[in-house]
Amino acid sequence: MNADPAVSSFPSSLDGLLNPRTVAVIGASDDPLRIGGRPLAYMRSQGFTGALYPVNPNRASVQGLAAFPSIAALPETPDVAIVAVSAHLAPQAVADLGARGTRAAIVFSAGFAEMGDEGVLLERQLVSAARRGGVRLLGPNSLGVLNPRIGFYGSFTSVVEMGFPAAGRVAIASQSGAYGSHILGIARRNGIGISACVMTGNECDITLGDVIQSFVDDDATDVIAVYSEGIRDGAGLLCALDAARQARKPVVMMKVGTSTLGSAAAQSHTASIAGNDAVTDAVLADHGVVRATSTEHMLDVARLATRRIFPVNNALGVITVSGGAGVIVSDAADKVGLPMPAMPHAAQQRLKALIPFASPRNPVDCTAQFMNDLTVAGQFTRAVVEDGNYPSILGFFTYTVGADSIAEGLRVQLKAVRDAHPDRLLVLSILASPERVAQYEADGFPVFEDPARAVRAIDAMGRFGAAFARVPGRPAPRVPPLLLPARTPSEVEAKALLSTIGVAVVPEHLCTTPAAAVDAAQSLSFPVVMKIVSPDILHKSEMGGVLLGVSSADAVREGFALLMERASSAAPDARIDGVLVARQVSDGVECILGIQNDPVFGPVAMFGLGGIFVEVMQDVVLKKCPFGEDVAEQMIRSIRGAPLLLGARGKPPVDVRALAVMLSRLSVFAHQAGPRLRAVDLNPVFAMPEGQGAYAADAVIDVDGHVGGEDAADGLAGRAAAQPAPRS
Amino acid sequence: MNADPAVSSFPSSLDGLLNPRTVAVIGASDDPLRIGGRPLAYMRSQGFTGALYPVNPNRASVQGLAAFPSIAALPETPDVAIVAVSAHLAPQAVADLGARGTRAAIVFSAGFAEMGDEGVLLERQLVSAARRGGVRLLGPNSLGVLNPRIGFYGSFTSVVEMGFPAAGRVAIASQSGAYGSHILGIARRNGIGISACVMTGNECDITLGDVIQSFVDDDATDVIAVYSEGIRDGAGLLCALDAARQARKPVVMMKVGTSTLGSAAAQSHTASIAGNDAVTDAVLADHGVVRATSTEHMLDVARLATRRIFPVNNALGVITVSGGAGVIVSDAADKVGLPMPAMPHAAQQRLKALIPFASPRNPVDCTAQFMNDLTVAGQFTRAVVEDGNYPSILGFFTYTVGADSIAEGLRVQLKAVRDAHPDRLLVLSILASPERVAQYEADGFPVFEDPARAVRAIDAMGRFGAAFARVPGRPAPRVPPLLLPARTPSEVEAKALLSTIGVAVVPEHLCTTPAAAVDAAQSLSFPVVMKIVSPDILHKSEMGGVLLGVSSADAVREGFALLMERASSAAPDARIDGVLVARQVSDGVECILGIQNDPVFGPVAMFGLGGIFVEVMQDVVLKKCPFGEDVAEQMIRSIRGAPLLLGARGKPPVDVRALAVMLSRLSVFAHQAGPRLRAVDLNPVFAMPEGQGAYAADAVIDVDGHVGGEDAADGLAGRAAAQPAPRS
Repeated sequence: MNADPAVSSFPSSLDGLLNPRTVAVIGASDDPLRIGGRPLAYMRSQGFTGALYPVNPNRASVQGLAAFPSIAALPETPDVAIVAVSAHLAPQAVADLGARGTRAAIVFSAGFAEMGDEGVLLERQLVSAARRGGVRLLGPNSLGVLNPRIGFYGSFTSVVEMGFPAAGRVAIASQSGAYGSHILGIARRNGIGISACVMTGNECDITLGDVIQSFVDDDATDVIAVYSEGIRDGAGLLCALDAARQARKPVVMMKVGTSTLGSAAAQSHTASIAGNDAVTDAVLADHGVVRATSTEHMLDVARLATRRIFPVNNALGVITVSGGAGVIVSDAADKVGLPMPAMPHAAQQRLKALIPFASPRNPVDCTAQFMNDLTVAGQFTRAVVEDGNYPSILGFFTYTVGADSIAEGLRVQLKAVRDAHPDRLLVLSILASPERVAQYEADGFPVFEDPARAVRAIDAMGRFGAAFARVPGRPAPRVPPLLLPARTPSEVEAKALLSTIGVAVVPEHLCTTPAAAVDAAQSLSFPVVMKIVSPDILHKSEMGGVLLGVSSADAVREGFALLMERASSAAPDARIDGVLVARQVSDGVECILGIQNDPVFGPVAMFGLGGIFVEVMQDVVLKKCPFGEDVAEQMIRSIRGAPLLLGARGKPPVDVRALAVMLSRLSVFAHQAGPRLRAVDLNPVFAMPEGQGAYAADAVIDVDGHVGGEDAADGLAGRAAAQPAPRS
Repeated sequence: MNADPAVSSFPSSLDGLLNPRTVAVIGASDDPLRIGGRPLAYMRSQGFTGALYPVNPNRASVQGLAAFPSIAALPETPDVAIVAVSAHLAPQAVADLGARGTRAAIVFSAGFAEMGDEGVLLERQLVSAARRGGVRLLGPNSLGVLNPRIGFYGSFTSVVEMGFPAAGRVAIASQSGAYGSHILGIARRNGIGISACVMTGNECDITLGDVIQSFVDDDATDVIAVYSEGIRDGAGLLCALDAARQARKPVVMMKVGTSTLGSAAAQSHTASIAGNDAVTDAVLADHGVVRATSTEHMLDVARLATRRIFPVNNALGVITVSGGAGVIVSDAADKVGLPMPAMPHAAQQRLKALIPFASPRNPVDCTAQFMNDLTVAGQFTRAVVEDGNYPSILGFFTYTVGADSIAEGLRVQLKAVRDAHPDRLLVLSILASPERVAQYEADGFPVFEDPARAVRAIDAMGRFGAAFARVPGRPAPRVPPLLLPARTPSEVEAKALLSTIGVAVVPEHLCTTPAAAVDAAQSLSFPVVMKIVSPDILHKSEMGGVLLGVSSADAVREGFALLMERASSAAPDARIDGVLVARQVSDGVECILGIQNDPVFGPVAMFGLGGIFVEVMQDVVLKKCPFGEDVAEQMIRSIRGAPLLLGARGKPPVDVRALAVMLSRLSVFAHQAGPRLRAVDLNPVFAMPEGQGAYAADAVIDVDGHVGGEDAADGLAGRAAAQPAPRS
């Protein structure tokens, strides 16, 4: 994750940060409302289990605790130190902490990279002090760390004024202190217990990925909720997400905004079609993350995930007391794509025999009849669980359980089913008093008032289950390593390069004279396509550099002259390599294959249908490189327009296998090519009928000719510069 | 709405049902938990302001009230009667009520159309009794009516056991009793006051449309929230929705499930592409309804709408204290399409001068700085309101206002802005105690905890505003009225018919001999299209009845024989009119224009791009017929693929005006054609370059040959049969 040798002496675990036994507060204040006073006040009121050491050169005691004049004067080495001094004093404080042997510091102080150039300089000094002293650093501009299990409040967030969080199994990582606190407040109101909350601030050292990794390592954490405004360290994040998946710890993430388009990526066709947020979406989904669209959504998913039931092949059975209510659930399930297969026929008949006007299909509606005989609710629920055999079951009893006359009896019926099937996800959607809800929760039923929110959360559990169970795709194919040319190659050079990694191109010849062009056209058979070839002309069609359907020797001669004329008037200084004469393919389906080098996640491959429609419909699929052919084939089959490839309206299916081979090889090439590869566009690629292959008719390989940036040697700062500073 | 002369003597207003001064309960029970006992118990506990008359032949008093042995024995004519007797006794009770002069009855009794054939019969008797007696009837199988303003609880819903609803300005209409009660429960928890709640049950007489109309007429109602499972009376509903729009009363509607596809409509191409729920969606949006996707969404919108601020050209300005939090709002606004234009440049500079590290664009971030000086929050908010001049403003202060030290001061600042600008929609997203939230609400700030939900509700206010302000489109063109043929016409007949209303078709000739076909082809110039023509073959291409690119006289002769052979083997008994020889159009953009006769809303027009993509991408627009050319042009320009029509990638724009004329004329034709017109498919229509028109290359007019169904004379039952009975 952090390959810089200068930081190799840092402790790899952040345990001291999350579970300290001794805490020093540098710049401790006697005023419990000041930044340097709040953590002390909070920890004292919440019974922090460890030792507290205020450091303040001007006072003998702070908030009733013995204070120390300096870091050096501390009676023991604190596991973690909170730095609450002015920004300009912070680097020295961190240096002193390093000298005292402290391995983790939380820097509250603001006035660093978030404040412009001067602050950037100060932040570099802070990082440098931390490195030299071997201190892992959270912040600066961080709202800190909360661990309610041990009463550790290394934070000055005022959200706790409305109540301190309860201890529990959900860990929260937030880049924003303000929004992290907001989440804490909502979590508390929703009865969600917290194992830890870390707010990363400027991330000059400890990143979101580091924090997630520490939650993966933390035995007290079952579920990880993440709020991100801009990912700094894509590789580190993905590493941590992989670890979470292997540890079967679900990650639900709210990633707001769209990540910055690197200037290089923005120029590529692929990036302009897909947009960068689509890359984030695809990469996170691929790593098993459920991306939340709101705080409610995130906490709904987190709360349900604490039950630790993650169906692999999720399907929903619904038991309800109102047909209409059932339709609401069906609508919601349809919206998220959660299947609701019908009950087995025999079970349906049995339920019909019990209550003739019941709807036994799924949703199973036992009708208001259950109010007269509560065992009906039990029998029907048991049938849905046992006969229907659904991994997930939603009981939608609306307000009926609110009435005391019904609630207690129904509870007994439902609990019996719950206890007999501890492996099932049994969720209730009810409207009842907080006390009743708490009772059902204690019985093992997660409760959601709104059925649509219940369905969305249930669907997320299946996504986690599928991610945890996913068998890795076959390994990516071996592709001969290529040295990228020093600058963007011409179309002909690009195709030659791609040929060496097994990407098939449309038969064509580069011609430098009209006569050679005529010979080439005759050998390929008419009609042909003619294109200008120049390393200085990237987008040929915009300047009229492509002629289609050239169908005679005379037309080839005229076309040659026309292309030369257009090139010299559009780009007088361009070097012209000649004219490409290519076979005109007409019976294939046009596709587009591309690579964009995402500034956060590195090379990402794209597949979509080509032509004018892909731009309008944005029907593309994305995946981080590299990947094998089976994965590529899954990608191709997943686009909405896949029927056009698989034989719609009686047309023959295309050679999907050949497309998959091309896409997979392209992904390996991009992965091996390194950061100088900005983008690849194969557009169009003609997918021929099955067994006849797929051919790229045009290819652009966009290479960064500028080797090594100014910041190339400065790992930490360079990483931080990849995205704008977070605003919190 | 109800054209049946037999019901013309019914009172047109449902005032007696909503605001009765005298209420009789037929089948009144002494047991306050029984169906016949609950309404009495509720009304007595809630202090119903009118007179209560229990009817029970077996008791002298019921729940302490003097009881009457029969309806005839009542001391005065009740404004409304609650019928809580067994189903088989209900028709007589309604007849007796009619005789006593009562004009409105609420039938709780179940066991009617929802229970199969026998129940249908009983329900007809009930309707017949109501008609003869001049009684408007709610139900049967209805959970009744609640009007908390006067303590009228003509309902046996048990949801009130958790608390009775507060009186307010939101009226609720629900087809389901169970879900209507659920909504009441959630509304109460969210502090939403109710003017009335009506649950329509089987709708044997009073429909959802009638109820909405009564809410439009009700001075105590400002906002109408509707829950529907299947619309029975489309025309009546649309009438009521138009009235609501004219009265500036917003309607938010949760319509679950997809409406049943009439068997006729299901056969048409148009219906299979768009689906019937898409029709509902389009028709509701067109009538100014905001369609809610969940109860939360519905009640969020209803609650905000009670402020009665409906911006016409909505745009959102955001003031926040955290940059990241602002991004969440931007994401949410982007998702619903609510514009967030930037602050004026001068105002941005002024704010930058106040706080150098503020983000003054929009969202406007005054940073945590405001905590040190609360006038900053006031100044920034005032700038967003006055300089930004946004119709809607969201203040996203997260948890910061929860702290007592901040809340009171901030409140003063915000209230000053609020009071100075009563016309603006000023919404807060904060996390605070219920008491603080109530205080802000009282100050005139609607409060939403979740910012995304606030944004969605704000967006709905703009949709209402736009609907209220909408200028009707130019009138639909006059089209000569056509008599539909007795049965589905052949392609040639269909095109001749469409020609008379001004729909242009591709030049073509119907030929009955090979020689005539060759002559026709030569006059049109090669290549040509050849198609079999038969009134008995609706879908030609499936049986190989269409030949494309026929390019010589010999090929025409061979094609003629081939088509005849295919027709006689595919449909031996089909009458063959001949072979159509048509010009093959190649340089137009393929479109599809269609009509489907929706079982609920009548004829609906569809426009989309043609060819294979429309089926995969489902990029179509729908609108209830008829409409004028300007509206048709707006429709055409609104599809996602519109760039393909307007000149994408340097291609010439097509003749959108000609398409609009065709679509508008088709809509008028469908409107005039009446219920026997099942569907029209013009597919493909070639839209030629601007000024060159648009031509239908194929046309199907699907006509119901079966004139007058069994139920044709039975208006009420026929209407009810259009959709399955509601399940509640």
